[in-house]
Amino acid sequence: MKRSVTGPEIERLIQLLARLPGLGPRSARRAALALVKKREQLLVPLAAALGTVAESVRVCSTCGNVDTSDPCTICTDPKRDPSVIVVVEDVADLWALERAGAVDARYHVLGGTLSALDGIGPDDLRIGQLVERAADPAVKEVIIAVNATVEGQTTAHYITDQLEGTGVAISRLAHGVPVGGELDYLDEGTLSAAIRQRRPF
Amino acid sequence: MKRSVTGPEIERLIQLLARLPGLGPRSARRAALALVKKREQLLVPLAAALGTVAESVRVCSTCGNVDTSDPCTICTDPKRDPSVIVVVEDVADLWALERAGAVDARYHVLGGTLSALDGIGPDDLRIGQLVERAADPAVKEVIIAVNATVEGQTTAHYITDQLEGTGVAISRLAHGVPVGGELDYLDEGTLSAAIRQRRPF
Repeated sequence: MKRSVTGPEIERLIQLLARLPGLGPRSARRAALALVKKREQLLVPLAAALGTVAESVRVCSTCGNVDTSDPCTICTDPKRDPSVIVVVEDVADLWALERAGAVDARYHVLGGTLSALDGIGPDDLRIGQLVERAADPAVKEVIIAVNATVEGQTTAHYITDQLEGTGVAISRLAHGVPVGGELDYLDEGTLSAAIRQRRPF
Repeated sequence: MKRSVTGPEIERLIQLLARLPGLGPRSARRAALALVKKREQLLVPLAAALGTVAESVRVCSTCGNVDTSDPCTICTDPKRDPSVIVVVEDVADLWALERAGAVDARYHVLGGTLSALDGIGPDDLRIGQLVERAADPAVKEVIIAVNATVEGQTTAHYITDQLEGTGVAISRLAHGVPVGGELDYLDEGTLSAAIRQRRPF
């Protein structure tokens, strides 16, 4: 836009909103407009909520999750099975598994994957802490739930090596046909894995 | 979700973000995650920007636009043609016209349309102020850019009546085929209008 339509404060707000995933420049403008039009109901509460989170957000020193308390809500939840640790690459993956209600365990967030290309080695990930946690006799199983990418699988193999000798059972996610998926659209690797790992009806 | 994955502060942030247009519960969760992961680059600046806007946002007493100054950025822009006032229903319409760079004039935001059903009468809209502004000898034309809905057109007729005697030229937006639009998909009213208001090639 050549001319400024609003004051610099609102333009800055639009720019920042546009950096949120899911919002582009146009939808950020709509969001900003909704905010300024609903000052009391939306703008002020959102500013306060962001301020509170900005002050209290921290990385859980146990599992690497991001939360407003340390240890995080999940690590301190007494109802979760303390014998299983689910290893994920990123907090987003943790949230995805929780959304699915897939598992009732604790997590360990690696913070990425091993990548020679990006210069990310074992010391850049939370692998040492995982080995420490797995040494706890209460832990019986580690589920490696990393992405099914080359980097993810390399990382999974490395972790498996590191956990050898701790005595925990190590498992990984099943490969196969996504629920609701059509065979015609799946790649050969997935189809082969689905056949190889077929299960009795 | 049955169990809480994060502390109440982040849950509250997700709820508020989900109320922004363009974000649903799922994308609000992704946005919240992006915010907590980018505390310094995104979360803190956005909290500050929202706070600043919350403190400074006001309705322009001249035109009804929402901005951080009163009179607003547009009303105080010396480069705009002071002889033309574009009447719109809502600030969103003003922003849309500005995005298009459609006109280099000032605006007047009504704040809605006349609606017997919703109990919105002339006194609930900024029509009196428009008549006052139009009485200024510097104003030569009022462009009524309300929506092409029944309520919009009713409001347009009412405004035309009120402006009678002020001596300003009153115009309204052209009806016709949208640029890039296909005739096959257009309604009869639009097609009839486009034929009636046909122009020499």
